[in-house]
Amino acid sequence: MRILGIDPGLQTTGFGVIDVDGQRLSYVASGTIRTTTLNLGDLPGRLKMIFDGICEVSQRYQPDMASVEIVFVNVNPQSTLLLGQARGCALTALVSQNLPVAEYTALQMKKAVVGHGRAAKNQIQEMVRRLLQLPGLPGTDAADALGLAITHAHAGLAMARVAEASPLQRRQHAMYKAGRSY
Amino acid sequence: MRILGIDPGLQTTGFGVIDVDGQRLSYVASGTIRTTTLNLGDLPGRLKMIFDGICEVSQRYQPDMASVEIVFVNVNPQSTLLLGQARGCALTALVSQNLPVAEYTALQMKKAVVGHGRAAKNQIQEMVRRLLQLPGLPGTDAADALGLAITHAHAGLAMARVAEASPLQRRQHAMYKAGRSY
Repeated sequence: MRILGIDPGLQTTGFGVIDVDGQRLSYVASGTIRTTTLNLGDLPGRLKMIFDGICEVSQRYQPDMASVEIVFVNVNPQSTLLLGQARGCALTALVSQNLPVAEYTALQMKKAVVGHGRAAKNQIQEMVRRLLQLPGLPGTDAADALGLAITHAHAGLAMARVAEASPLQRRQHAMYKAGRSY
Repeated sequence: MRILGIDPGLQTTGFGVIDVDGQRLSYVASGTIRTTTLNLGDLPGRLKMIFDGICEVSQRYQPDMASVEIVFVNVNPQSTLLLGQARGCALTALVSQNLPVAEYTALQMKKAVVGHGRAAKNQIQEMVRRLLQLPGLPGTDAADALGLAITHAHAGLAMARVAEASPLQRRQHAMYKAGRSY
């Protein structure tokens, strides 16, 4: 299975593509979509760059599904609104390519990649480098995106284990999953 | 010129299409895109419905440009985030159809349609009905969307007058316009 991770942002949107074969993860591609060449106030233009960028990545690498960071309310409500619009754009690009979308919080990603939720940016970069056997550190946005793809790969393995589990364990897992909401 | 007005929302997105011929406005179509058949938590699915709906309207009615409501920060930050994502999706759908997008606040729309900024929903519906000579009241979301299209038509007329104005008047208008930012 090929997973496309997306770390949405209005200025830079990170993307990372990995292949999953059983327990084995391998790096395919990563990078950032930057909208900083455009005027700060040109929201439609910037969303078009994000949309076109994600569609291009999706068409080039043909992922089977996407894993996107769940964004949270910021201290600055105006920033929340802008980030929300960027994330809405990124999700729209993915669903326009008919990709199923899984969503994880930054906390879930850090736990899956580094092992705890208080991981710093450079710890995420370092663990992503090790897990995917990269020759150097990925950029922070690309590392987050690759981390989201890895998180979904791990969740998939956990789900596979659930499928092999007892009916009681399955029910408990379903109840746990149902707890996750917006 | 044909204008597509969009009043974005996660549950219902209003759309309205009008033709502008000099001072004359005529109604083409209006309606709402509803995502309420889907689970409240299925954000990707709901954004796909909004994206597909706007693309369909755009392809069917072939507007020359779009006019979208600028949303503001809500008292509830979580609502702000959800509305932001819906608006990001709507803008993305429009730019994916290569439509130029103009943006107006609800206040600007009410002033353009009713004449003052404190207009109630039913006053907007009534004025839209009169301006477009409709046989009955449009729904509230459709009325807002038609109102946004009318607002852009009026702004276009104002711009045309500016083009015929003196250099000083033009400069004053440009300074006024520059005041509008995110």
